[in-house]
Amino acid sequence: MPIITLTTDFGTRDGYVGAMKGVIARRAPEATVIDIAHDIPPGDIAHAAWVLASSANEFPYGTVHVVVVDPGVGTARRAVIASQTGQWYVGPDNGVFGYVTERATAAWAIEMQQVGRSISRTFHGRDVFAPVAASLAAGEPATRWGTSIQLAGELPWGPRPERTGRIVHIDRYGNLITDLPRGEAGNAVTIEGHALPLRGTYEDVASGELLAYVGSMRTVEIAVRDGRADTRLAVGRGALVMPVKDAGPYR
Amino acid sequence: MPIITLTTDFGTRDGYVGAMKGVIARRAPEATVIDIAHDIPPGDIAHAAWVLASSANEFPYGTVHVVVVDPGVGTARRAVIASQTGQWYVGPDNGVFGYVTERATAAWAIEMQQVGRSISRTFHGRDVFAPVAASLAAGEPATRWGTSIQLAGELPWGPRPERTGRIVHIDRYGNLITDLPRGEAGNAVTIEGHALPLRGTYEDVASGELLAYVGSMRTVEIAVRDGRADTRLAVGRGALVMPVKDAGPYR
Amino acid sequence: MPIITLTTDFGTRDGYVGAMKGVIARRAPEATVIDIAHDIPPGDIAHAAWVLASSANEFPYGTVHVVVVDPGVGTARRAVIASQTGQWYVGPDNGVFGYVTERATAAWAIEMQQVGRSISRTFHGRDVFAPVAASLAAGEPATRWGTSIQLAGELPWGPRPERTGRIVHIDRYGNLITDLPRGEAGNAVTIEGHALPLRGTYEDVASGELLAYVGSMRTVEIAVRDGRADTRLAVGRGALVMPVKDAGPYR
Repeated sequence: MPIITLTTDFGTRDGYVGAMKGVIARRAPEATVIDIAHDIPPGDIAHAAWVLASSANEFPYGTVHVVVVDPGVGTARRAVIASQTGQWYVGPDNGVFGYVTERATAAWAIEMQQVGRSISRTFHGRDVFAPVAASLAAGEPATRWGTSIQLAGELPWGPRPERTGRIVHIDRYGNLITDLPRGEAGNAVTIEGHALPLRGTYEDVASGELLAYVGSMRTVEIAVRDGRADTRLAVGRGALVMPVKDAGPYR
Repeated sequence: MPIITLTTDFGTRDGYVGAMKGVIARRAPEATVIDIAHDIPPGDIAHAAWVLASSANEFPYGTVHVVVVDPGVGTARRAVIASQTGQWYVGPDNGVFGYVTERATAAWAIEMQQVGRSISRTFHGRDVFAPVAASLAAGEPATRWGTSIQLAGELPWGPRPERTGRIVHIDRYGNLITDLPRGEAGNAVTIEGHALPLRGTYEDVASGELLAYVGSMRTVEIAVRDGRADTRLAVGRGALVMPVKDAGPYR
Repeated sequence: MPIITLTTDFGTRDGYVGAMKGVIARRAPEATVIDIAHDIPPGDIAHAAWVLASSANEFPYGTVHVVVVDPGVGTARRAVIASQTGQWYVGPDNGVFGYVTERATAAWAIEMQQVGRSISRTFHGRDVFAPVAASLAAGEPATRWGTSIQLAGELPWGPRPERTGRIVHIDRYGNLITDLPRGEAGNAVTIEGHALPLRGTYEDVASGELLAYVGSMRTVEIAVRDGRADTRLAVGRGALVMPVKDAGPYR
């Protein structure tokens, strides 16, 4: 049974998510629709990109992931299909797929005239991405929708400099998630002038204390036990995190 | 496979939605349950009505839509089933179906003694509407639940005056959604003293600017690019929107 | 078709819920995953326990309920499976199952080395509880995961004193839900110096007035019609509610 996942900034108080689910139910009745997250901050492409990165690859091969965080809807920004390591991606080419795709990822531009319904200028989730996802879930080829292209969307931060991490996501708990892999972190990191040894889990420090640890994405995270690291350190995404010294690999 | 959708003001932090899903899973195991929206502002009937209007008709024929925004639960307000253009509706007769039904819509009152469980005074979502929805999804006739009636629930605003729109919904982004159809809007509208030409999409104006456009419901919407129109204009639902002049149909 | 329900404090803006759903979809493709609630206040074990209590028993026999409100993740707190009245429970042994299990409930400790993937220190929802739930849903025995134990987790309040209720939950509407059964409540209760006769439903008092009534869990609840009882009374969970006098059973 094919799976279609939804990640949007539509929230859970309007009818936008429901409209997408209705279109999918009508066009791909055999597909299972799974909500990943709908409370992405409005228009926050980098946030959506990380949410997708932290969940998409857990799904079975052939899953279709639809992402609608699309502040440029109705403009010349492209609507795309991408395929990487057995997962399908459908959404705007604005960087939302930045963590799950690579330069060589197979991708296709969605040509609007292929969509068999009138298309609004402001709701491509319903009018374009849902029909395309239903089609892929039903086994139709991506080439039905358009020609092969190279993805152009980019994340707000460029490639990671060597031996340097950036805060790339702040989660519900105020935890700071970085892109510094555990293999490069050594035994301690610095952030905003704080040197933090790598711990195992939250309870390795006292309540209210800062700690660094290897998170569920196998990168360094910064947290405050029973508190919020984002407000404690008053930092945002993009801030740098660096290994203290060449202290050898994490054990 | 029959579909049951849920639209409630129960939020996503209590067990109320789960209890409804449990009742449905027990009584109609073959049905697929789809969340439309649970963060309807508490008791906001008009909000729920618009959410339903913007999603229900996308679903396949035979879908059962349950709406539980029910500040009058436990009083004499009727619990009803309605059927319109192939969709089923179940919920309180308080106006939540105001946009998706018409005077001639087939409807039935739900008689409480037909429900095979003890009924609380405060949670008809679990005790009445979920069992009725499960029954309809399983193919039982609406007449099993009660006799034919005419719906009485009304929206807070009456029928739309000619060549006049009202703000009927404010969405997560602060966009003002009106009931002025694009065919009556001409080329520009006025709201709160602002004359706004109709644009195509958000990026047709500079960041921070007001714009009017034809939205995904094919009515006029007012937005601020990268901002919120509701706070900019300090208006609420019910405010009037009018065509500037008889400027001909929208092209 | 087996059902797996999810109750977490992961919110609806991160990828954590999606990652759990992906693991389940891969390991138990035939299972139906149902969201109960994800906006449990972070780390609030008692809140999660009540949400589960108010929904779990509505589900069909054999349903697997996963709860991930787990501030002690990665420490010595046990991960457990429990089975009570035909429902399965999977999560941390920290009190989240306090209302749905009893001293004699069959339970098993989950041994980490039985899980066929590397286990992070901070995300057992994905790495432990989702795989275990998928296994139970697929019909594997609980004994596959570990040996029989007795649950140790406890709620913040002990057993209920005779003829005394406590506020055990405050819901989205600010309603105060107590554990005082209707059979012990008599005709009126006192809370914070207010004596409140038991009413039938909200509309039995004027808008803005306090009322007590028998709620959907068949215990006494306190509400303000069209308002919030939690802010009106400025009370929190744990506050006492008592019958005014031995006024006989509720009729």
